[in-house]
Amino acid sequence: MSSEHHRETTQQKPAILEGMRVVELSAFVAAPLGGMTLAQMGADVIRIDRPQGGLDYRRWPVTENNDSLFWAGLNKHKRSVAIDIAKPEGRELAQQLICAPGQDAGMLLTNFPARGWLDYHALAEQRNDLIQLTIQGDRHGGSALDYTLNPRLGLPYLTGPAREGKELVVNHVLPAWDLVTGQMAAVGLLAAERHRLRSGQGQHVQLPLEDVALSVMAHLGFIAEAELGVERKGCGNDLFGAFGRDFATADGARVMVVGLSLKQWQSLVKATDSAAAVAALAERLKVDLNLEGERFKARVELAEIIGPWIATHSFAEVQARFDDCGVCWGKYQTVAELVREDPSCSTDNPMFSRVQQVGIGELLSPSVPLNFATGRVDAKPAPSLGADTEEVLLDVLGMSSGQLGSLLAKGIVSKK
Amino acid sequence: MSSEHHRETTQQKPAILEGMRVVELSAFVAAPLGGMTLAQMGADVIRIDRPQGGLDYRRWPVTENNDSLFWAGLNKHKRSVAIDIAKPEGRELAQQLICAPGQDAGMLLTNFPARGWLDYHALAEQRNDLIQLTIQGDRHGGSALDYTLNPRLGLPYLTGPAREGKELVVNHVLPAWDLVTGQMAAVGLLAAERHRLRSGQGQHVQLPLEDVALSVMAHLGFIAEAELGVERKGCGNDLFGAFGRDFATADGARVMVVGLSLKQWQSLVKATDSAAAVAALAERLKVDLNLEGERFKARVELAEIIGPWIATHSFAEVQARFDDCGVCWGKYQTVAELVREDPSCSTDNPMFSRVQQVGIGELLSPSVPLNFATGRVDAKPAPSLGADTEEVLLDVLGMSSGQLGSLLAKGIVSKK
Repeated sequence: MSSEHHRETTQQKPAILEGMRVVELSAFVAAPLGGMTLAQMGADVIRIDRPQGGLDYRRWPVTENNDSLFWAGLNKHKRSVAIDIAKPEGRELAQQLICAPGQDAGMLLTNFPARGWLDYHALAEQRNDLIQLTIQGDRHGGSALDYTLNPRLGLPYLTGPAREGKELVVNHVLPAWDLVTGQMAAVGLLAAERHRLRSGQGQHVQLPLEDVALSVMAHLGFIAEAELGVERKGCGNDLFGAFGRDFATADGARVMVVGLSLKQWQSLVKATDSAAAVAALAERLKVDLNLEGERFKARVELAEIIGPWIATHSFAEVQARFDDCGVCWGKYQTVAELVREDPSCSTDNPMFSRVQQVGIGELLSPSVPLNFATGRVDAKPAPSLGADTEEVLLDVLGMSSGQLGSLLAKGIVSKK
Repeated sequence: MSSEHHRETTQQKPAILEGMRVVELSAFVAAPLGGMTLAQMGADVIRIDRPQGGLDYRRWPVTENNDSLFWAGLNKHKRSVAIDIAKPEGRELAQQLICAPGQDAGMLLTNFPARGWLDYHALAEQRNDLIQLTIQGDRHGGSALDYTLNPRLGLPYLTGPAREGKELVVNHVLPAWDLVTGQMAAVGLLAAERHRLRSGQGQHVQLPLEDVALSVMAHLGFIAEAELGVERKGCGNDLFGAFGRDFATADGARVMVVGLSLKQWQSLVKATDSAAAVAALAERLKVDLNLEGERFKARVELAEIIGPWIATHSFAEVQARFDDCGVCWGKYQTVAELVREDPSCSTDNPMFSRVQQVGIGELLSPSVPLNFATGRVDAKPAPSLGADTEEVLLDVLGMSSGQLGSLLAKGIVSKK
């Protein structure tokens, strides 16, 4: 018995969303992440996939055998029912699952278009308190990906080395909008379910990726700044609006240091023995460097004070001194170094356990980062496609084994 | 009367979280964003701030008068109570607000340390079903910022121009981990409140920023890939694992095109009249370019086929052709161009309204991107510090005007 199973069976209390049931029809990042967040909090999340898998079933990174680490990562803790939804009978079956009874069921999370067999009103005929949350590309139902949306926001001009002109665009690697949207999908489902519990009413909730990104660009002040006529320039690795940037240590390590709050700034000045030089600079520039904005304006001069101290100390010395003084800092490391050397990225961190993933092997697998006092459930692997077809059709839909056999024979469903 | 007020008073149905009350003690991005998400869904979110404002009250971007567009952006729709929480009497008052009665109240969202006067058990003595959600830097309660955490994850080595070696690190501009964490805070509060409704039990929920980031790095396969010994190389603006990158048009515009799914890829090939050349390439390389991974491996050669078509057509021609063929693409534009030219970033988009922000002026302000069938509430401005001190102390705590006057006179609270 693996330690994963051992830890799970010692779990005392039911997980926080125990009893909730969500059906998921999805691909890529946002919707699967939203569903997985609920699953890792104890909801029964049932993925419906075509027997051969959906659009993201081979999404990179993949193993040598072309098994997707991406798909396995985003579908942990779910159940899988394989239904051929290209066939009318398969679609009807999927509709039955979506609309199956249960006070805490009747919830659909999808990024498939809410039309045809997934039209909310059509589904609501089978369950009038259905909650459907549809992640859309834009508010009109058009498609958009994180990668095509992000260029429209201006960020690729502000990312990377400081420069004039617009030739160099730098995409960021992280699908940040998908990640935010996935969590907002979980927010939306929980809010709609809260409302249903009080009112008895279901609803269709739409969540456009484009609107998530635009709202955040406004929340952070990017849009207001442009409305006021200020054109922000890229500032490379400098923290915008205060003091922060990367520096090399004497032995070639690289660290990010931040003096955003006054306390952080004072810690950094103390740790690098820079008080006198900083005071002289403030005197020379006739500014108050205790104000974060003044630190940003004087960032080049300040880096010339802070940098040499770091450049003449080894990483070990920098680390000891910074931690001693309470500096806010971080080390640049590769993903390989993170996995090999960082204790937070190991089972030292109770969020992680080692989980056997069919076809791939044992993986360091995180549960949900929300640590509820009512208990955290260890990560479970992603299902094989169709692993739960039989169980779900018998238990949730109350099907007989004869009916199941007929569906299997006709190729409407498959099981692993 | 502004159009904002007009639209709001025509709102027919109560917002989805109407009646919920959350007290927020926070700074920077994650906690304020989590609180604002709930506020924009109709919860009564009461910020408690020191009369002079918290650590982020002057965070850039700022106006010429040093009013923070950042703070205004992240605190829309909340109420503000100004209390001097440096004084014991102020702390007691804040505790009373946090623990004030009401079935849908008794919720605290904070990124302040859960110790001393904010220790959960101390607070729970005043309200035993209190829900407290604490955003932490790491799981031990240590501090971390998005900007110091991100370097540890390996992403700055994978962002930006493809290169060998580790000299160049590229920070991304967007505080993505803060954004995800903010939404997970809303998820955590909603889940804990759901649990309280069923069990009567409150709890302290901890949400470490570090764990959010590490869990996502695992979910997306970065950690599994490294565990399997694969060291991913940066690939600049190329989409990892399929075909996608930026191209310049004949008139100097820049577009991001993506062929991730087979359908997207076929649309791109068709739009750029590349079918014959792509087939010849597949023949020459002896690979099936209908497989996304093969497209990634052949991305340089494919760009040599796709690129010239784009480079010899104007942006208008590219746009028309791409939209006609259903290509998945996006235009690179600056924030200024987004605000000036993109209809989605205007009141054409019903998520946006124009809102008068005290001290700043009229701003394009988004509501929550979740579009509930039960209705969306237009954005409201952020409060002035202390704007709601009087109302909240009288209504929520049932204070007399004499008691309020005494607190004002002693400088324990202030009002705008």
